[in-house]
Amino acid sequence: MSGASLHRPLAAADVPRWDDEADVVILGFGAAGACAAIEACEAGADVLLYERNSGSGGASGLSGGEIYIGGNGGTEVQRAAGFDDTTEAFTTYLKMAGGPCADDAKCELYGREALNHWEWLKQQGVPYRGNYLPGKHIEPVGDDTLIWSGSEAAAPFCDAATPAPRGHVIQYMGWGGGRKLIDILEQRVRDLGARIVTDARATALIRDGDRVVGAVMRIDNQDRYVRARKGVILATGGFVMNEAMRRKYCPLTYLINDPIGDKDDGSGINLGLSVGGDAIHMDQFFTTCPWTIPEPQAQGVFVNQQGQRFINEDCYHGRVSRAMLDQPGDRVYLLLDSKHFDQPFDYARMTIAGTGDDWEEVERELGMPQATLSATMNFYNDHARRGGDPLFDKRAPILTPLDQGPFIALELNFQTSYFSFFTLGGLRTSTDGEVLDRGDQPIAGLFAAGRCTSGLPAWGHGYSSGLSLADCSFFGRQAGRAAALSA
Amino acid sequence: MSGASLHRPLAAADVPRWDDEADVVILGFGAAGACAAIEACEAGADVLLYERNSGSGGASGLSGGEIYIGGNGGTEVQRAAGFDDTTEAFTTYLKMAGGPCADDAKCELYGREALNHWEWLKQQGVPYRGNYLPGKHIEPVGDDTLIWSGSEAAAPFCDAATPAPRGHVIQYMGWGGGRKLIDILEQRVRDLGARIVTDARATALIRDGDRVVGAVMRIDNQDRYVRARKGVILATGGFVMNEAMRRKYCPLTYLINDPIGDKDDGSGINLGLSVGGDAIHMDQFFTTCPWTIPEPQAQGVFVNQQGQRFINEDCYHGRVSRAMLDQPGDRVYLLLDSKHFDQPFDYARMTIAGTGDDWEEVERELGMPQATLSATMNFYNDHARRGGDPLFDKRAPILTPLDQGPFIALELNFQTSYFSFFTLGGLRTSTDGEVLDRGDQPIAGLFAAGRCTSGLPAWGHGYSSGLSLADCSFFGRQAGRAAALSA
Repeated sequence: MSGASLHRPLAAADVPRWDDEADVVILGFGAAGACAAIEACEAGADVLLYERNSGSGGASGLSGGEIYIGGNGGTEVQRAAGFDDTTEAFTTYLKMAGGPCADDAKCELYGREALNHWEWLKQQGVPYRGNYLPGKHIEPVGDDTLIWSGSEAAAPFCDAATPAPRGHVIQYMGWGGGRKLIDILEQRVRDLGARIVTDARATALIRDGDRVVGAVMRIDNQDRYVRARKGVILATGGFVMNEAMRRKYCPLTYLINDPIGDKDDGSGINLGLSVGGDAIHMDQFFTTCPWTIPEPQAQGVFVNQQGQRFINEDCYHGRVSRAMLDQPGDRVYLLLDSKHFDQPFDYARMTIAGTGDDWEEVERELGMPQATLSATMNFYNDHARRGGDPLFDKRAPILTPLDQGPFIALELNFQTSYFSFFTLGGLRTSTDGEVLDRGDQPIAGLFAAGRCTSGLPAWGHGYSSGLSLADCSFFGRQAGRAAALSA
Repeated sequence: MSGASLHRPLAAADVPRWDDEADVVILGFGAAGACAAIEACEAGADVLLYERNSGSGGASGLSGGEIYIGGNGGTEVQRAAGFDDTTEAFTTYLKMAGGPCADDAKCELYGREALNHWEWLKQQGVPYRGNYLPGKHIEPVGDDTLIWSGSEAAAPFCDAATPAPRGHVIQYMGWGGGRKLIDILEQRVRDLGARIVTDARATALIRDGDRVVGAVMRIDNQDRYVRARKGVILATGGFVMNEAMRRKYCPLTYLINDPIGDKDDGSGINLGLSVGGDAIHMDQFFTTCPWTIPEPQAQGVFVNQQGQRFINEDCYHGRVSRAMLDQPGDRVYLLLDSKHFDQPFDYARMTIAGTGDDWEEVERELGMPQATLSATMNFYNDHARRGGDPLFDKRAPILTPLDQGPFIALELNFQTSYFSFFTLGGLRTSTDGEVLDRGDQPIAGLFAAGRCTSGLPAWGHGYSSGLSLADCSFFGRQAGRAAALSA
């Protein structure tokens, strides 16, 4: 990391000239930046939106376009599928998903406002087919809308919050609807008259006293000094692509090898820190190995190298995957019987580590001592046949005996299997997107949203699909409006 | 956390008057501050040492006075006990103890220099009886010197680094030799002519441009402006006593209830951040429940609420305790047979959760399903009788069957048992104690040492007794010398 990465702020008095200005200057054109721009424009602000790439997208553009929405009785899609999702259940789930890192105020606000946000998304032109797809899916392969996208129906979540599916996916055939979502939001941003400048990277914030009044933009290898009359909004994403930052703040990600993101180099976090911002929960990250594909494999059982189970496997795939990395050693095994095994998803890079006509033979093939994996599976099957999992409380219909040989163990190796990941830690912000200093006070003129902040998806063990886009889009809007209306 | 906790820096131009000045200004009079003062004085600097309490001590003064030392063939105490500790083994262990958070440069420097540091400690007048106390001890109850104070003899450490005991304890009858250590260091500081001011709390650093040139001290409810001609050294400890900081940066500590420290409110970390410092590994903490007392209990086996073992219990008590907190639920059980059970240490607040004439009965008393805990113990005993632990590689002499009934399970409950803890994250510093900014550059005029930095004890799962005092004392000296010799 070079000294340039410091993003040291520039004093307004040292600005040689103002090359451009706007009420609200937004850095980053993913979902957070786009939603901030829309709200700021609608609140009457003149908006300048900078993006370091040649076009919009960011990590949002690489996503599935799925947004976590519920509460207030449920969206019409939830209700049609029979889920009258209460605000209490929804908010409780959001807080549990944040675990020890939960921002209660953000969970409560989004818990109350998510249905309004849903209406807003549709008003922007985001299309939804409106149907419910039961089962265990990472993303729909069709253009379905509503899926179970978290651990809602699994212990301990289901005991504290009435479960409901809450992942609302944009109408798009196959994976990758995030690009379409961004295209729609971009069109809205353009229609509302925001000025968009691409290939423009922020290198510093400009300060007048304690107030952020602009940014230094690097465009065509020249510094451009841009004044923000009301506020600067950081929407530049996380730091998953910055190896030095991962080493310092999130070193567990060095267990695995597949960062997902765009140019997520932590620049927004560094810009915020450079003027007194506060970065929190920097050790947290999402990770997943797509082990639930093909779907029958979702019925599998995981054991560590000791042959022990370690979680109720009916949890969200990312929660299960995050727990894998807590196990001793460098791998875990997905156990399947002939009824549930199918050709594993190539992309996951899971390998066949052992097979056998009974679990004892699989155990021997894995080089495990007698009465480890086999004892685990005999115990599991005995209880699964009676409909229970006394150890981890896995529930039907995912809970099922694995007793129809032959049997197989797939290896999920932290170094060689596909474990995608992105970072969750970032700037601490208020529910209005104000960047807070270490003393809890807003930094005048500075706002942030998305993965350069710590928001709804705050805790790796509680991540659910759609939480990050919910956070980016809803709190992006909050930041846009607050910036536009600020003094 | 009030705005006052921001420790916002003051511009030198805004200093109304200089109330005092010195070459080197040190904040905090624990081991780090004392050692920094001694070296700075010996390098010819005029030193002012401020302490917010009414006397020296800090967390070091509450400690056992044990320092982790080895390498270069071993101290004379190690050699007399038969341990020719190599620098390679010592350094390898230090790096493993730092895990994913290890600062290789610090491990390598201390690996080379620890024996010189040992001589230096003795030159300051720190007395050592010089004997070796075998066995498993948290601290000697007598005035013994050399103990096993980490996980050196346990897997995986022992396989990568030839084990040696390296905890060197000051000669002092019973626990609490840290106070004596500080008294000796304080006398040296006084003899060398450092000026000591107590009841003086730093509220801000003073900057001239980018250079730190002093500190604002709060004394008798008045601000005193103190110039540092060469440097300010932060030696104020960690943030275990600051609940707001723990919530933001180290929320897992909210599982447990017994912070240990003095006034460790993170003020030095905040002061460093206020001028562009970089706080790393803020989620890391040491914790321990003193379960190895009385000593036969060190032979016990831990299971989680699923009845599964989770670690080789011959590791350092703090490593085992840290792993307990990773288990599902809110408690773990220490299993003992009649040969190894004795009245548990009151202080640990472990309670008897179940007893039985066989492990099956204990299992029932704990409300665990059949063939969980009992299967774990039957498997463990079968292998222990043959001298092995195929699951976690626990080694003799700690490895022993627990098969002489009656049997007992002690509950270690995260909320009600005694789990002491302190924080390990802090400012990133060079091996010379320079506080580094986020771009890896030293902040001119600012140094730090001890638990307001991330140093040798960087990773909760790898902590070993004596690592923190080694870090405080050695890198405190480094900071003191570097500050005194800086331009």
